[in-house]
This record gives sequence, structure tokens and C-alpha cells, in this order.
Amino acid sequence: MWRFSAQETAAIAHGGDLGGLRKAFPDAPEPWLDLSTGINPIPYPVPPVETSAWTRLPEASEVQTLRAAAASAYGAPDAAHVVPAPGTQILIETLPRLLAPTQVAVLGPTYAEHAAAWARAGHTVREVADLDALDDARVAVIVDPNNPDGRTFALAERRALAETFSARGGLLVVDEAFADLEPVESLCPHVGPGLVVLRSFGKTYGLAGLRLGFAVAEPGIAARIAEALGPWAVSGPALAIGTAALSDTEWRAEAARTRAADAARLDRMIVRGGGQVVGGTCLFRTADFSDGPDLYRRLAAAGIAVRRFAERPERLRFGLPPDKTAWCRLSRVLK
Amino acid sequence: MWRFSAQETAAIAHGGDLGGLRKAFPDAPEPWLDLSTGINPIPYPVPPVETSAWTRLPEASEVQTLRAAAASAYGAPDAAHVVPAPGTQILIETLPRLLAPTQVAVLGPTYAEHAAAWARAGHTVREVADLDALDDARVAVIVDPNNPDGRTFALAERRALAETFSARGGLLVVDEAFADLEPVESLCPHVGPGLVVLRSFGKTYGLAGLRLGFAVAEPGIAARIAEALGPWAVSGPALAIGTAALSDTEWRAEAARTRAADAARLDRMIVRGGGQVVGGTCLFRTADFSDGPDLYRRLAAAGIAVRRFAERPERLRFGLPPDKTAWCRLSRVLK
Repeated sequence: MWRFSAQETAAIAHGGDLGGLRKAFPDAPEPWLDLSTGINPIPYPVPPVETSAWTRLPEASEVQTLRAAAASAYGAPDAAHVVPAPGTQILIETLPRLLAPTQVAVLGPTYAEHAAAWARAGHTVREVADLDALDDARVAVIVDPNNPDGRTFALAERRALAETFSARGGLLVVDEAFADLEPVESLCPHVGPGLVVLRSFGKTYGLAGLRLGFAVAEPGIAARIAEALGPWAVSGPALAIGTAALSDTEWRAEAARTRAADAARLDRMIVRGGGQVVGGTCLFRTADFSDGPDLYRRLAAAGIAVRRFAERPERLRFGLPPDKTAWCRLSRVLK
Repeated sequence: MWRFSAQETAAIAHGGDLGGLRKAFPDAPEPWLDLSTGINPIPYPVPPVETSAWTRLPEASEVQTLRAAAASAYGAPDAAHVVPAPGTQILIETLPRLLAPTQVAVLGPTYAEHAAAWARAGHTVREVADLDALDDARVAVIVDPNNPDGRTFALAERRALAETFSARGGLLVVDEAFADLEPVESLCPHVGPGLVVLRSFGKTYGLAGLRLGFAVAEPGIAARIAEALGPWAVSGPALAIGTAALSDTEWRAEAARTRAADAARLDRMIVRGGGQVVGGTCLFRTADFSDGPDLYRRLAAAGIAVRRFAERPERLRFGLPPDKTAWCRLSRVLK
């Protein structure tokens, strides 16, 4: 009767959960410095939340306002092209269950939840290494800019890919989770049949606990996704804070400037520490170290969490330190 | 390629959205008194939310703490039987998409989203009027206590039903959204194969904007549902506030006492206003009026929103007034 069987999903490693590290390194100094995620360490200042945002059911007009703010922030044609969700992750889980089982190709290595979610929903999933190899699939997934290496393709190339999939009745999913603060051109203004773009709110605005993310797609597809989430998917506080933050173009421009400077500083520190920067975005930097596993342990012993990759032990991903003390702590290990 | 086509879901009427009423009754006094939902008008006092609840990704240990608090509050065997979600509605949407298309019976009339969600996911759905008529279906849905009439079945009867569905490899979904403050025995302590119980947080605790709800099921089914929602489905503030509120047994006991008194007061007022109380829970009362449509308009003209039912024009559902002023406003119309 059940369409899907429960899988062992605990195997996918994520940043942002210090529980395991605390156990493995009980002598590390508290508080831990968590550089294991790509979340902006300087959050958007949370405006006071009105009591009614907690107590009332979110109103349709508030959802509409958020959709319009997101459409404007992301350059989508209009609000009808935008589906707000309680975090992008739930969109990554939901989308595969809306399609009949088919052939899916994921451009990797990338954020592991994409391939896992399509596989869990009964699709046949391959990870491929280059754009051309996506062509055989009915559904393709790319993350652009990519996590963890920051790889990005020219807009023309991505648009051509979207058109290929659209022409054959397929679907291209482009996860632009890290596009907000980058000098990259988004596909959002160009959504059409067969293209779904995902945008993440929590990373850019440093509010990952709020749970807010968006799918941008043509209205027909957007309606399908919205329906699968049901009414009131997004919390009252997320509607209010999301609308305020997405409308604040000045804050975002300033965040892009300062985080880019932080990223450059982090690169210099990594190089000084013997690392070779592979890439990243201005919210995280990924580097290879000849002594990767040892450096990971030394960082952890100093109470600093970074992201490692089981299949590439030399590779580490660093989020941005939030303040002077944190920069100094990191600098003391990376010297 | 798409498994489901987007439906016209706007047709399902819900309480809690005043936008349409404001347009239809532009001269009604502001602020509107919204009695159109069954949400506790005296909310749990929202404790201060730590900044990290907004900024960090929710940690697995926090989710585990919430699950344990919910298991204890609902009488579920343990945390492994509990799946937290961003509102019960998203569980109502998600569950049908996890099952291969089958025969579904919904005991009605009841909350309309159940039948709609199963139909949208490709199942064959019948609404039936009594418990025996559920028997032919592979999946059955009951709401107990029922919305809007408060109908409830004896625990033994519900357990027997659950066992029938379990024995034949079917599934019984019991929506206990309004059970928290009622003198009814929950099925949560008795979950086994083929039974999913839904519990709503926002109604009882008056925090509908927070978006928090639970599925209670045997661990195998719970894991399937949790997987469909993905990690971090519940926001940081909802984890913190939910854990605090669900652990506060004193607040809940006091809420049950005072809301029951409010409900009795509302019944008296309805009867004085010429209504015949059909039933309800201590968070809403449903009544039939010979002049239902006219009363609805008089209430709206006075800025009071109640829930009406397209198929039963004589029937109105009233939420509880929040304070003395609100009681007086309602009393002036219901006289």
C-alpha cells in the first residue's frame, strides 16, 4: 500500500548540528564556533514580531505579499510564479513525489539531499559530472552556484539547458540556494515550462531557523507545488520577517559587499594555513589540504566545526566567522 | 510526467481569513472579531525566543526533545512514535501522496481538506455518514472529536476500527485536532500498524501562526512520514515554544477548565439568540438557526466573522470570544 519505504537517511551528513562533535571532542572549548554551514553569520535584524503573527492563521493576503516581495527580490515575472515553503528542504522532498517515476540526473558532486530525495521517491537517479551528460535524463538537477565548490555556468548555458528539457517535456531543477549574494545571473526571470528554480531565504539572511524557501516556476507548476504544501505552509513570523527582509534591497546589497570581503579574507587565511581554495560562494569557502583529516581534528579540538566530505578526506568547507573573536580562533589553528 | 494535476483548491472554505469579509462588508466596524476558527483565543504565553532559534538550523537534539514532549503530552508510547511537522495541514497533504492510489472513505461531513487531499493525490474518495460504511475502503479517515459537530466515538469503538484496518493491511487516519482540551480518550497510546493519529498544536495553544502539528504512528510509519518532510521541517521558534507549551501540563489543564466554561457560556448565548446547539468542542460551538444566512449577515455587519457551511445554510460555527468586549459584541447581535 505504501508507495515508498522508509530509507536510512541518517547517512547524509549535514553541517549545523554540533551534537555529534560535542560527543567526539568533549574537551573542546565551549562555545563551539560553528563554521560547518553556509549560513550568513550576520543575520538580518529580526524585526519585532506582532503577537498576531503567532496566534492567527496566516492570511492569504499576507502570503500574497510575501510572494510579491520574493518575485521582486528574485526577478521572477510575478507573484504567481512564486511558491513559499517552510524551507527549501521540504521543496526538495516534495517535488520528486509529484512526478511519476522517471530517469533523473543530478550534476555532482553537490548537495546530497537532491539525489537522495529523488531516489526515495522511486526515481532512477544517476550522478553525472558534466552538463552534457544530463541530456539522457527526463529530469535534471543542478545547483548553481554549486555547493560545495561554487561552480557556476553562464546564464546562456543554463537557459539552453532549460530549453532542452522544456522542449522534450522534461524538467530542469536549478537550486540557486546560494545565488543571492553572488555576481551571478539568476534563471528566475526566465522560468518557463519545464523549469523549477529553488531559492533559499535562511542562508542569505542568516535566519535558517525561521524555515523559509521558495520555488520559482511557471504558474501551472507553481500551483501544483503550492497545492502539495497546502494552505498555511509558512508560519506567521516567517511571512512577516521574510517580507521585510526580501524588500530590503539595501541590506542585501551591503551583505553582498561585506560577505564578499569576508570570503576573500577567509581565502587568505586558508592559503596561509596550507590550503588550496577550490571555490565556494561568499557564504562558504571550500579548500583542499594535504593534511585534511588532521586539520579537521585540530579544528574540532579547538572547538571549531567545519564541514568535511566522507568521499574526499582532503576537502574541508568553511563558513564565515561571525566576529573578531571567531576570526582569531580560526586564525590560531590555520597558521 | 506530473503525477497530479493542479486542482481548483480555492473552493474549500476556511475560517480565519478576513480578507473576503472585509470586502463584502466594507462598513463593518474595525477591528473585526474573528470567531470563524476553532483556535483558542487565550494563547499560551509565548516565551522569549532566543536569537539562535531564528539564526541556526534546528538541531536534531532539539527535534528529539520536542518529540519526547509531544509523546508525553499525547500519551504516545515514546518519541519514535511522533513526527513533528510545520502544521497538521501539511501532514494532511503529505500522507495521501505516500500511498499508492486506493479506495478511501472519509466519515463526514467533516474538515473538508481530508477528502480533498486524498482526491488530489489520485485516490478514489467517498464520503460516508456512519462508521460501518467505512469498512469497504482500504483507507479510512475520521475526525474525532469531529469538526464542526463534535461527534466522538467511544475509545473501544475507535480501537476496534483501527484493528479492522490493521488486520487487512489498510490504514485508519484519526484526526484528533480538537482532542487536547476535551474529556475524550485519545488513540495515541494505542497506535499500531495501520493507524495514524494527527494532533494539532496551534488550536489548543492559540498559536496557529507558529505552524506546528504532529503525526503519531508506529515507528515504521512515523519514519516514512518524517522522511517525506525532510530534516528541519519545523522552525527553531516552533521547536522551542512547542516544547515549553507541551510540557506545561498545568496550563493545559487550566485551559481545558476555562475553555469548557466559555463554551457553556457560548451555548447559552446561542440558545438565547434562537439557535439550536448541534455540538462542537470547547474551542467552537456549532448551531442551527432558522434564520442562519440572515444571522450570518447581521454578525458580519457588526464586524463579527463566524464560519458558515455552503451545503447547510442554517448552520453556523462560533469560535470563543477572547475577552469581555468581544463577548458583549457577540451578545448584542445574538439577542
